[in-house]
Amino acid sequence: MVAVVNALDAARRIAPRMAARAGDYDRAGDFPVEDFADLRTAGLFGLMVPSALGGAGASFADYTAVAYELARGNGASALVFNMHASVTGALGALTEELADSLGLPDSALAARDKLLADAANGSWYGVAMSERGAGSRLSQLTTSYEVVDGGYHIKGAKTFCSGAGHADAYLVAARSVGDQSVVSQFLVPASSDGLQVEQTWDSLGMRATSSHDLHLDVTVPADRLLGGMEGLALVVAQLMPHWLIASYAAVYVGVAQAAIDAAVEHLNARKLTHLPAIRARVGRADAAVAAARLAVAEAGRRVDEEPGDPETNRSVWRAKLLAGTTAAEVAASMLEAAGTSATRRGHPLERLYRDARCGSLHPATSDVCADWLGIAALGGDPDHDGSAPRW
Amino acid sequence: MVAVVNALDAARRIAPRMAARAGDYDRAGDFPVEDFADLRTAGLFGLMVPSALGGAGASFADYTAVAYELARGNGASALVFNMHASVTGALGALTEELADSLGLPDSALAARDKLLADAANGSWYGVAMSERGAGSRLSQLTTSYEVVDGGYHIKGAKTFCSGAGHADAYLVAARSVGDQSVVSQFLVPASSDGLQVEQTWDSLGMRATSSHDLHLDVTVPADRLLGGMEGLALVVAQLMPHWLIASYAAVYVGVAQAAIDAAVEHLNARKLTHLPAIRARVGRADAAVAAARLAVAEAGRRVDEEPGDPETNRSVWRAKLLAGTTAAEVAASMLEAAGTSATRRGHPLERLYRDARCGSLHPATSDVCADWLGIAALGGDPDHDGSAPRW
Amino acid sequence: MVAVVNALDAARRIAPRMAARAGDYDRAGDFPVEDFADLRTAGLFGLMVPSALGGAGASFADYTAVAYELARGNGASALVFNMHASVTGALGALTEELADSLGLPDSALAARDKLLADAANGSWYGVAMSERGAGSRLSQLTTSYEVVDGGYHIKGAKTFCSGAGHADAYLVAARSVGDQSVVSQFLVPASSDGLQVEQTWDSLGMRATSSHDLHLDVTVPADRLLGGMEGLALVVAQLMPHWLIASYAAVYVGVAQAAIDAAVEHLNARKLTHLPAIRARVGRADAAVAAARLAVAEAGRRVDEEPGDPETNRSVWRAKLLAGTTAAEVAASMLEAAGTSATRRGHPLERLYRDARCGSLHPATSDVCADWLGIAALGGDPDHDGSAPRW
Amino acid sequence: MVAVVNALDAARRIAPRMAARAGDYDRAGDFPVEDFADLRTAGLFGLMVPSALGGAGASFADYTAVAYELARGNGASALVFNMHASVTGALGALTEELADSLGLPDSALAARDKLLADAANGSWYGVAMSERGAGSRLSQLTTSYEVVDGGYHIKGAKTFCSGAGHADAYLVAARSVGDQSVVSQFLVPASSDGLQVEQTWDSLGMRATSSHDLHLDVTVPADRLLGGMEGLALVVAQLMPHWLIASYAAVYVGVAQAAIDAAVEHLNARKLTHLPAIRARVGRADAAVAAARLAVAEAGRRVDEEPGDPETNRSVWRAKLLAGTTAAEVAASMLEAAGTSATRRGHPLERLYRDARCGSLHPATSDVCADWLGIAALGGDPDHDGSAPRW
Repeated sequence: MVAVVNALDAARRIAPRMAARAGDYDRAGDFPVEDFADLRTAGLFGLMVPSALGGAGASFADYTAVAYELARGNGASALVFNMHASVTGALGALTEELADSLGLPDSALAARDKLLADAANGSWYGVAMSERGAGSRLSQLTTSYEVVDGGYHIKGAKTFCSGAGHADAYLVAARSVGDQSVVSQFLVPASSDGLQVEQTWDSLGMRATSSHDLHLDVTVPADRLLGGMEGLALVVAQLMPHWLIASYAAVYVGVAQAAIDAAVEHLNARKLTHLPAIRARVGRADAAVAAARLAVAEAGRRVDEEPGDPETNRSVWRAKLLAGTTAAEVAASMLEAAGTSATRRGHPLERLYRDARCGSLHPATSDVCADWLGIAALGGDPDHDGSAPRW
Repeated sequence: MVAVVNALDAARRIAPRMAARAGDYDRAGDFPVEDFADLRTAGLFGLMVPSALGGAGASFADYTAVAYELARGNGASALVFNMHASVTGALGALTEELADSLGLPDSALAARDKLLADAANGSWYGVAMSERGAGSRLSQLTTSYEVVDGGYHIKGAKTFCSGAGHADAYLVAARSVGDQSVVSQFLVPASSDGLQVEQTWDSLGMRATSSHDLHLDVTVPADRLLGGMEGLALVVAQLMPHWLIASYAAVYVGVAQAAIDAAVEHLNARKLTHLPAIRARVGRADAAVAAARLAVAEAGRRVDEEPGDPETNRSVWRAKLLAGTTAAEVAASMLEAAGTSATRRGHPLERLYRDARCGSLHPATSDVCADWLGIAALGGDPDHDGSAPRW
Repeated sequence: MVAVVNALDAARRIAPRMAARAGDYDRAGDFPVEDFADLRTAGLFGLMVPSALGGAGASFADYTAVAYELARGNGASALVFNMHASVTGALGALTEELADSLGLPDSALAARDKLLADAANGSWYGVAMSERGAGSRLSQLTTSYEVVDGGYHIKGAKTFCSGAGHADAYLVAARSVGDQSVVSQFLVPASSDGLQVEQTWDSLGMRATSSHDLHLDVTVPADRLLGGMEGLALVVAQLMPHWLIASYAAVYVGVAQAAIDAAVEHLNARKLTHLPAIRARVGRADAAVAAARLAVAEAGRRVDEEPGDPETNRSVWRAKLLAGTTAAEVAASMLEAAGTSATRRGHPLERLYRDARCGSLHPATSDVCADWLGIAALGGDPDHDGSAPRW
Repeated sequence: MVAVVNALDAARRIAPRMAARAGDYDRAGDFPVEDFADLRTAGLFGLMVPSALGGAGASFADYTAVAYELARGNGASALVFNMHASVTGALGALTEELADSLGLPDSALAARDKLLADAANGSWYGVAMSERGAGSRLSQLTTSYEVVDGGYHIKGAKTFCSGAGHADAYLVAARSVGDQSVVSQFLVPASSDGLQVEQTWDSLGMRATSSHDLHLDVTVPADRLLGGMEGLALVVAQLMPHWLIASYAAVYVGVAQAAIDAAVEHLNARKLTHLPAIRARVGRADAAVAAARLAVAEAGRRVDEEPGDPETNRSVWRAKLLAGTTAAEVAASMLEAAGTSATRRGHPLERLYRDARCGSLHPATSDVCADWLGIAALGGDPDHDGSAPRW
C-alpha cells in the first residue's frame, strides 16, 4: 500500500530512470518493461485503488500530478499507465451508492473489489476500445459478445491497445449479439485462450506504448462483465469523460516540460544560453507549459469536486486542448532553440518532438475540443450542436 | 468595513454597471467618476487595508480576483483601482515586524495607519512614478526633493499618472538633492499647493484612466514620507515586484474575458453561432483566457505564501506575459469573429480591441518577461543576465 | 493622361504627403479631401481608364502596385480610391467583345466611354452596394428600381458607402420591382435629387473613408444603367471577383508596410534598435509583409492573364487572406516593439493598429477565404461546398 | 544535354517515382540511389552547367523551380541534389570575367570546364564543409592542407556531408598549414586513397541524405584546387550567399507542399473533407505555402539579376525564413488535420512532419535570418550588428 504523497514522491524518483531508458525503448519500439517493473515495485498500480482495498486512494487531481511526473520521464510509459489508471479509477468510482442507483447486482461490487485488490497487488490493465473504422466511438463498434456456458464469448478485433502483450487484462467494449443497442465492457484476462496480439504499432511518436492490435475470440467468466450488468458502457462514458480526455492532458504537459528540461540541459552544455532568441523561446515555453499544467490541475480539482458538471466538462476540454497544442508547439520550439545537433536520433528532443505531436490527435482532438468549448461559451449544448466530431 | 467575500460580490455587482458606462468614458477620455463612486460606496477602497484599520484585509490573491471582476466591467477603471490597491497593499505589507527589521521609526507605523484608515474611509491614492525619458526605472528619476521647514519640498514632473486630477493623494518617487543615490517615496495630498495636472493622456486604449502628467512644486509634511525614512523606494520595489507587474495581469485577463463576453452577446444577437470558424475562435479564446486566469491566481497564491521567492517571481512574470499576450490575441480574434459591425465606435469590442493591446506594453513588457523567464529556466539570474530591459 | 509608370511614380510622390495628413483625418473622421485633390491633379482617377479614352490603361497588377503605395501613405484614402478603381476597372473590362457576347446594345459602350472619359478628366465614383442586414450579398438586396419616364427610379438605403458625400457618382445595385430575380447596377450622379448621405460612419479603423449610409429616392437617365441592360449585376460579380476581394488586399499590404515604416522611424528615434527582441519582431514582420506583397502581385498577374480561371480565383483568395491576417499581426507586433509611447493618439502606429485590423473583416473575410481555399485544395467546388459564408 | 524547360518537366516526371520510394529510403536511412539514377538519366546533373559545356545553363531561379518539384517527391533527395547544384552553380558562376577580376590563372577555367563537363556527363558532387564544433563557419575550420608533390595533401574530418559514400567528388574547405588565414576549396575525388566515410547520420528527418562524417587524409592533384588559387573560400562565400542559404528554401517549400498533397489524398480517401476545421487548416496551409513559394521565386529572380546586392540578400533571408517556418507549421497542421492514422510509420505525413522541422535549423537558422532582416530593416548592417549568430 502506498499513500498519495508517497506516490508522487515515487513518481519523481522513478522519472529520471525512465528518462534514461526512454531513448532505447523509443528506438526499438519496445514496451518499457523496466519502467513497469519500477511502477509495480513502487506500488503505483494501486494509485487509484481505494485504501480499504490496499491502494493509495488517489483522487483524479492526484492522478494528474503523478502522470505529469511520469511523463516528464517517459511519455509513452505514462500514456500506458494512464490506461491502467483509467480502468482502476473508473472501477474505484463505482461506489456502493452508484451501484445502488444503477441497480447493479451485489456480485458486481465483489468482482470490482477483486480486480482492484489485484491491481494494488501488482496487476495492471490495458484498454481495448478502439477499432479500425470506428475509432473510439462506442456507437460504431463491431466487436460482439454473447452469453455462453460459463460466461461470455467475445469476438472481434481492437486497435490502438496500449500495452498489448504486457497487461494482465484488457478492458474490452463489445456489442451484444442479441441486442445491437447494448454495449458492455469486460476485463479480459491476458491469459485467455483466443486472445492474440498482432504487432501493428509502429508510429511517429509514443513508440514504446506497444499500442498493437488485439484479436479476440475468447470466453470470459461471468464476473468479468464490469458492473455485473450488460449495457453499462455508454453510461460509464457519459459519467466519466475525464478518463477519456483529461487523463491524456497530464501526460502531454509532462512531455512538454520534458522538452524544456532537455533543451535547458542541451543549451547549457553547448554554452548557448546567452543568445536572446533562445532565451525568448525558453521563456515563452516556460510560461505556456506552466499555464497548461495549471489548466490540468484545475480540471483535476473540478472532476473530483463536481464530476459530470457542465463547467467541469469545460475544464476537461480546456485541459485537453491546451495540453495538446502546448506540447506540440513547445517541443517544436525547443528543438529549434537547440539546433541541428539535437535532431540526431538518441537526443531526447528528437524523441520528444515526435511524442509531443500526438497529444492533439488523441480523442477528443484539439479541433473537437475547440468546437465544444465554443458551443458551450456561446450558450449551446456541445452534445447536440457539435459539427461532425470524429468520435 | 467590508469582508473579502463581500468585496468580490460587490465587484461582481458593480461590474455590469461599469460595463454599461465604459463606452461613454472611453469615447470622451473622461475619468470614470461614477465607477469610483460605486467603488467608494461598496467599501472597495479598503480592500487591501487590514481589518484592524477598517478594511477587508485582502490578500494579493483576493485582489487579483476582485481586479478580474472589475476589469470585466471596465478595464480602465480596474487599472486605476490597481494603482490604489498597489499603494494600500504595499502599505499594508509594512508590518511591525518589517518596520523593525528595516529600522523604521515608530512614527512610520502611525503615519501608515492613518493613510490606511483614510483609505478604508473612502480616500484613494494614485501613483506618480514614471517620468518622460526615464519610464518607470527608479534609477533614472529626475524628480528631486529636499528637507525643508515643515517637511519635504518636491519638484519635478511625472507622466502616466493614472487618475490624475481625481485621486486624493499621489505616491511620488523622488531623488534626494543631497544624495543622488537616495530615492524616497511620498504620498502627496492632491490638495497640495503647487501640484498641477497637465491633460496629456489621449491614448489608443485604456482611455478613461486619465493617466495625465503631473507637475510638482510642493511641500509635504514629514509624515508623508513613506516608511518615515528616506531611501526606501528601491527596497520596496525589490520586496514587492508583484505590485509593479502582476497587478496588471489580473486586469488584462478581465479585459480578455470581457471581449469573449461581448463576442458571445453579439454573435447570439446576430444568430451567427452556428458558423464553425466562429465557434473555433470562441472555443480557443475560452481556453486561453481560462489558462491566463489560472496563471494569475497561481501568482497571487504564491505572492501571499512566499513573497520574493525566486519561484514566486517567475510565477509573477508568467502571469504578466500570459495576460498581456492573451488579451491582445483574444480581443483581435473576437473582433474578427464578430465582423465589421463590431468595429463601429460604441460597440464594446471596438473598445476592448484597443484596451487589450496595452497589457503587453506595461512594464515589464511581454518581451522582457519572456527574457527573464528564459534566463531563469536556463539557470541564470534575471537580475544580472537580462538583455537590456526597458525599465 | 498619365502613363502607368508615371502613375506609380505619382503614387510614391503623393504618399508621404498623405501620410503627413493621415493622423488629422483619422482623428476627425473626415474625408481626406486633400488626398483626393492630389489624386485628381496627378491624373490617378484615370488609372484604369483605357488610354484611348485618356487614361493610363492600367492592368489589375498595375492597380495593385499603385494601391500599395497609396496605402503606405494613408490606408483610408487608398481604400476609397480602390472603390473608384473597381468601378472604372470593371467598366474598362467591358470590351466590345464582351459586350457582343453578352448581347449588349450599342449605346452601352458609348455610355461606358462617357463615364470613363469623365474619370480620366477628374471625376471619381463610389460604390453603394452593401445594405444593413444583407451585407454585400447581391442576392439579398432590398433596394429596388423600376422603369419610369426618363430612365429609372431607384429607392432604398445603402451602408458602408466609402466616400459618401464626396464622390461624383455612386455605383448602386438594385432589384427590379417587376422581377425580383433581376439585379442591375446604376451609376447614380451625386447631384441627383433625392440622394442623401446619413453620417453614420464612426469606426475603429479606416475612419477617414466616410463610409456613411446613402438614402436613395432618385431618378437617373437611362444611360446610367451600366451595360445598358438590366440584370447584369450578378454576371459582373461572377466575372470580376478580384475587384470585390483582391483590391482590398493591396491596400492592407500597404498598411502593414506603413506599420513597419513607422516602427523603424520610432525605434531609431528612441535608439532602441539594438534590442534583440525588437529586431526579431521587425525582421519577421519584414518577411511576412514581403510575402503578402508577392501574393498580391501574383494575384494581379493572374487576373490580368486568366481572369475567372479557378486557379486565378485561388490566388485572389490567397492574397486577400494573407493581406488581412498579415496586416493585423504585423501592426500589433510593431506596436508592441515600439512600446507605450506609440499608443498616444497622433502616433502613426496608434492609427495603423486600428486600420490594420479591418482587412480580414472585409468580404470575403479571412475565415471565408480559408474555407474556400481549403475546399478547392481538397478538390471540391467552393461555389457549392462552402460552409455558410457571410456574403 | 537538357534544356531548362525539359529539366523542369523531367523533375515533375521523376517526382512521383521519388515519392513512391521515399518511405522506404527514410525508414532504412539509406541513400536514394534510384532517385539519383533517375536524376542522372534525365540529365539533371547538368542543370547548372553552361550549355556550351553540355548542360542546361539554368539560372538560380530555374534551380529553385526544379528543386521545389524534386522536393515535392522526396525532400531528402532534393537536399542532396541541392549540394551538387551549389557546387556546379558556383563553378558556373566563375565566368572568365570574374576569373580576370580575381586574377585567377588560365588553368583555373580549364579545370572548371572539365568538372562541369563531367557533371553534364553524369557525375555529381557533394559538399564537405561543416565540422564538429565549427559548424559551417569557415573561420573556425580545423581541416588543413599543405602543398605536396603532385598537388595538395588534405587532412581532417567533416560532418553533415550529404551524399557521403555516393557522390563522385566532394567540395572540401580546408585551411593552409602555412598560413592559418588562408582557406581554400578542393574538389576531392571520391576514389581518393585516404578518404573514408563514417556512418554517423541517423536523424529525425531528411534521413535519406546520408549526411555522414567524412575523414580525409588524401592527396589531390593541383587542378582540384578550385579557382586555381588558394584563399578563395571566403570570397566565394561572400559572393554567393544564395547557395548557402536560399537553395535550402526551395527544398522546404516543396516539402511543405508535399505535406498538403499527402493530407489532401488522405482526407479524400477517409471522406473527411466536409469537416470545417480540416478545411480551414488546408486552406490556410495552401495560402502559406503559396506565399513561401513566391518568396523563393523572388529571391531566385533577384539573385540572377543582382547577385550580392543588399536587397537581394534580404530576399534570400526572407525566403529562407519563410520556407523554414512554413514547412514546419504546415506539416504539423496537416498531420493534425489527418489524424492519428497518419502517424503510422510509412504514411507520408509521418515522414514529412519530421523532414519539415529541419528547414529552420539549417544555417542561417530562422532566428538568425529574423535578426538579420530586422537589422537591415532598421537601417543597420547585418554583417556587423548581428547578435551572436550561430555560424
